[in-house]
Amino acid sequence: MDQSSHRTCGIIIIGNEILSGRTQDLNSRYLAQRLLTVGITVNEVRIISDIKDQIIDCINELRNKYTFIFTSGGIGPTHDDITAECIASAFAVDLPIKKDAKILLENYYIEKKIKLNSSRLRMARIPKGAVMIPNPVSAAPGFQIKNVFVLAGVPNIFQAMVENILKKLEVEISIKSKTITINKAEGDIAEKLSIIASNYPNVSIGSYPFENGLIKGTNIVISHHDEKLIKEITKLTETLK
Amino acid sequence: MDQSSHRTCGIIIIGNEILSGRTQDLNSRYLAQRLLTVGITVNEVRIISDIKDQIIDCINELRNKYTFIFTSGGIGPTHDDITAECIASAFAVDLPIKKDAKILLENYYIEKKIKLNSSRLRMARIPKGAVMIPNPVSAAPGFQIKNVFVLAGVPNIFQAMVENILKKLEVEISIKSKTITINKAEGDIAEKLSIIASNYPNVSIGSYPFENGLIKGTNIVISHHDEKLIKEITKLTETLK
Repeated sequence: MDQSSHRTCGIIIIGNEILSGRTQDLNSRYLAQRLLTVGITVNEVRIISDIKDQIIDCINELRNKYTFIFTSGGIGPTHDDITAECIASAFAVDLPIKKDAKILLENYYIEKKIKLNSSRLRMARIPKGAVMIPNPVSAAPGFQIKNVFVLAGVPNIFQAMVENILKKLEVEISIKSKTITINKAEGDIAEKLSIIASNYPNVSIGSYPFENGLIKGTNIVISHHDEKLIKEITKLTETLK
Repeated sequence: MDQSSHRTCGIIIIGNEILSGRTQDLNSRYLAQRLLTVGITVNEVRIISDIKDQIIDCINELRNKYTFIFTSGGIGPTHDDITAECIASAFAVDLPIKKDAKILLENYYIEKKIKLNSSRLRMARIPKGAVMIPNPVSAAPGFQIKNVFVLAGVPNIFQAMVENILKKLEVEISIKSKTITINKAEGDIAEKLSIIASNYPNVSIGSYPFENGLIKGTNIVISHHDEKLIKEITKLTETLK
């Protein structure tokens, strides 16, 4: 892969409800799939708890390691929603109530005939220097500060925010992928596949066994931005059928 | 919570298929829920790729940070299954083919009338000093080395290995549990129960609906090593009656 144009990324899923297994994380998978379409590879996902130091350390470590960081969760109205203050701490900036964000919330809650109390107003706190990410579902915005995108944890809001960001992220390279289904058990083709894979160290060649009734098979997934290379490896892989 | 007897844990999910979003990770949630029943809190989950250095660094970082580490994935027969060699590197030990493991594989493949080729034989490589974790599904064992448990990625094998480990971990700590029977359908109490549960993220609170003739009811099972905490939650749960 052309390393110069290769953009890396880390995803941080914040929340005890995910970490304890009470709630299944669906956001990291969704984001990973969507990012692939704009040529961004996810290098790491971390699921962490609602603990200030853990969040700050994790953000600071990963934002220096990867091109982009995406966080999910912890920007709601309750006491355990501490992501915004952690981001502000990580970047050593203030966390004021942002006028634009407050207006968004005011309009939303007036329409819903719900009181904009002090808990809800917390959601208008945006770290200084950050740009808001629209929330078409429930108004309270996410935000971007430098290479860190801070998104809601609720899946439909998260997804809406992701779609909004993707529009912005210019498509530098688009990764193509090709799946070859082979009706043989993984162990029967592994040896030959390893030889093919070792000849293309910079191409992602995944091997995924499946069972379909009595048939044991393997899906081989070849991913790269160079379609010629994919075709070449596809041809070789099809000899394993 | 009694911190002195509190056991921490990190989960490492290894595999490009998870990281790329192609496959949904289900193992970390399963494990987190099961560990809670023996009083172990998951402090962090990391999903990482099939890259040697990333795996080794991650294992070395987390095994020094938490009481236990569990890994999932990368112990199959193909070229991208490199977890065993990474673990051996992390602990600076050899990775020989273990006789006992080889015999397990031989017996399994003879019965299945499948050839035990050199790819499959890779699954008998166990780091020196490690103890095998039985795989009742497809023979190839996981293993434990010091505080690191290395498990398969395929969910039903992963789960079988987890259950096997739990039996061992359970004896180290005495977990108490209390069942509260409520003669209301699960859906009628779910909302209030989840509020209670969210206040006790480190306590396993299971909800098991039942039907007994015309009565629809729900058994709530609270498990923890701290009896005081169980009593506290029992009191709250009984308000749902």
